[in-house]
Amino acid sequence: MQKKAILRKKLSALGVDGILITDLVNVRYLTGFTGTSGYLVLTRKHALFVTDFRYKEQAREEVKGFRIRVERSERSGEIKEITDTYKIRTLGFEDHNVPYAFYKKLSKKKIKLKPLTGITESQRIVKTQAEISHMKTAVKRAETAFRKLQPFIKPGATEENLALKLEELLKKEGCKILPFGVIVASGFMSALPHAKPTSKVLKEGDLVVFDWGGEYEGYYSDMTRTVLLSGRNISRQKELYYTVLEAHKRAADSIKPGIEAAIVDAAARNYIDDKGYDEFFGHGTGHGVGLEVHEKPIVSWRSNEILKENMVFTVEPGIYLPKFGGVRIEDMVVVKKNSAESLNTLSKKLRIIER
Amino acid sequence: MQKKAILRKKLSALGVDGILITDLVNVRYLTGFTGTSGYLVLTRKHALFVTDFRYKEQAREEVKGFRIRVERSERSGEIKEITDTYKIRTLGFEDHNVPYAFYKKLSKKKIKLKPLTGITESQRIVKTQAEISHMKTAVKRAETAFRKLQPFIKPGATEENLALKLEELLKKEGCKILPFGVIVASGFMSALPHAKPTSKVLKEGDLVVFDWGGEYEGYYSDMTRTVLLSGRNISRQKELYYTVLEAHKRAADSIKPGIEAAIVDAAARNYIDDKGYDEFFGHGTGHGVGLEVHEKPIVSWRSNEILKENMVFTVEPGIYLPKFGGVRIEDMVVVKKNSAESLNTLSKKLRIIER
Repeated sequence: MQKKAILRKKLSALGVDGILITDLVNVRYLTGFTGTSGYLVLTRKHALFVTDFRYKEQAREEVKGFRIRVERSERSGEIKEITDTYKIRTLGFEDHNVPYAFYKKLSKKKIKLKPLTGITESQRIVKTQAEISHMKTAVKRAETAFRKLQPFIKPGATEENLALKLEELLKKEGCKILPFGVIVASGFMSALPHAKPTSKVLKEGDLVVFDWGGEYEGYYSDMTRTVLLSGRNISRQKELYYTVLEAHKRAADSIKPGIEAAIVDAAARNYIDDKGYDEFFGHGTGHGVGLEVHEKPIVSWRSNEILKENMVFTVEPGIYLPKFGGVRIEDMVVVKKNSAESLNTLSKKLRIIER
Repeated sequence: MQKKAILRKKLSALGVDGILITDLVNVRYLTGFTGTSGYLVLTRKHALFVTDFRYKEQAREEVKGFRIRVERSERSGEIKEITDTYKIRTLGFEDHNVPYAFYKKLSKKKIKLKPLTGITESQRIVKTQAEISHMKTAVKRAETAFRKLQPFIKPGATEENLALKLEELLKKEGCKILPFGVIVASGFMSALPHAKPTSKVLKEGDLVVFDWGGEYEGYYSDMTRTVLLSGRNISRQKELYYTVLEAHKRAADSIKPGIEAAIVDAAARNYIDDKGYDEFFGHGTGHGVGLEVHEKPIVSWRSNEILKENMVFTVEPGIYLPKFGGVRIEDMVVVKKNSAESLNTLSKKLRIIER
C-alpha cells in the first residue's frame, strides 16, 4: 500500500478529518519532495502539497499523487483557506514540530486543532523494499569510500586529515549530504564515544575508531570500524576488540521479529558485563536509520519496542576505557522473518596495521 | 557589555523574571556552546546552562559565565526544579522554537509561561567586533578557496565537479561546516536563482554563477561571483554583468546608519528597472549573516528595518533572463558610521575566461 494511503487510513481513529504534516522529513517520506520549504494536508479525499515559488518546478518533478499549490500569502491564512475548502472540521498537526507561535496563529484563525504525536514516525519505523534498497546503496558508498581510505591510515596521519579525506571520498561516491561529521578518534581519544577529530597524530599501538555514514536518495547509512596500529604492547587492545566483536555477534544473532528491542541490547551488554567491562559500555546498542540517521527504534536497555520485519537499525556495542582507548563496531541490519541480515559487507575482523 | 548582560537587562520590560533559551543558535550566541544538546535559563541573579552527559566536558571548556548542570531526568521536570529553585514566577520562552508538545509538558508542570518573540535575534542583528572579525576570516576562507578553483573553471568542466571541488577547497581552508551546498549554475541554468549543480557541462559563451560561503568559529560568509566563458556573441552577457555590477555599487554606496533597509534595495532595483530589467530581479537585495547564513536584517522592498552601525548583511542584486542566463554579484558589508565597508576583497570586475 502507498505510504499516503496508510496514513489516510488512520485519520478516523485519530479523531481528525484532516492532517497537517510540517516536519520536512515526514513531508519527504510521504511526497518525495526534497526541498526545504513545504507542507502537506491530507484528508480522506484530498492530498495537497504546498510549497513556495522557489520550489514550484522541483515540486512538479518530485511530488506525485498530490495536488501542488504554490503559497501566495501568509502560511496560517492559507491553511485556513484549505481547511475551509476541504471542509476539515478538526485538523491534526504534528505536536513535536509545530512551534508554539505557529500553533497560536492557527488557533486565532479559528481552525480546530488536534495535536498528534509520532504518527508518521511510527509508520517510518518499518521500511519498504525500496527504502531498504536505498540504504544498501548508502552502505555500499560508505564502505567503498572507507576502502579507498586504507592507504592513508598509518602512524603519522592526523585524525582531522583522515576525517576530511573520508568525507571527500564519500562525496565522490555520490553522497550529496553526510549524516554527520566523520568521527576519527585515536588512542585515548577513542575512549570518548562522541569525540570530534583533532590534530592528534596516530601512533603505534593506537586503537582508531572510525564512525561515518553515507547517503543515497536521502536515506542514510551509519557504521563504525575500529583498527589497531601495530605496536609493542597491544594485548589489551586486542582483548577489547575481541570482546566487542563477540558482543556484536551475540546482539546480531538475537534479532528476530516479535522480541523487545531490549533483548538485543541485553545480548551485547550481558557478554560485556561477563568480561568485566560493565561500566565501560555507556550507550545503547543501536538506533533506527532511514531518512534520519537517528530514528526509531531505539535499541537500549529501556526499549520495549517490539521488533518487526523490515525494521532497520544499527548494532554498535562498544567498550571505552578512560585515558586508554575504546572499541566500537557498528553494522546496520534489517529484521527478516526469523533473523537479521546485515546491510554491511566490510569485514569486522581485527585489522592490525603495520608501519 | 556582555551578551548575557544585555539580555538580562530586558527581563523586566518583557514581564518575566526568568528566560528559557532553547534555540541552539541563540544558546551558542549567549554561551559559546557548540554542541547539539543544551539550553539555558537566565534570571537577574542566575545564569544556568544545562546539557546532557555527552557534552559535560565540552561545556566546561566552552561555556563561560554560566553554572553548568548535567541533565539527569526528563527535561520538563528539570526545568520545573530550576524554576522552583530560582523562584521564577514567570518564565519567558522562545515561541518560534518551543514545539507545541514541549509547551504542553511545561504547562502541565504548572510553570507560568510567557511566549517571547525574537528577543535574542534582535540582539544578534548588531554584531560585536569579535563577530565581525570572525566573519572576515570566514570571507577570507571563502575567497582563498575560490582563487584556488580558478584553473578548473573552463569549457568542459561540469557544474557538479566544480561545486564538489570548491567544497573540498573550503574544507581545506578550515571550514568545519558549510552554510549551504555550493551553487554552480551555467548557461540557461544560471537564470534560476536557486539552481543546484547538475552534470551540465560548461560551454563557450556561458555565464556561470558561483554562490558559496565559508565558516569560522560558527560564523558564516556568503558570496557570489559570476564569470563569463569567452565565446562569439557575448555582448548581451556583458551588458547584464555591467548592469548588475552598477546596481551592486549603488546599493553599497547607499548604506549608512539611520536609513530603512528598503532604501538599499531601491538603490539597486531602481537602476535595474531603468535599464529595462525590472521583471528579472525577483528576490530581495540582501540578508543578514552571522551564526546563521540567513538572519536579520532582511534587505528588500518591504523592509522597514532601520540600519544600525555594525549590522552585517549581503548586497546581492541579480538579473535572471529565463532560458538565457543570469548574473548575481554578492558581497558582505558591515555598516560603519557614515557608510558601509565590504568584508570582501575579491575583485568584482568581469572575468572573461578564455579557452
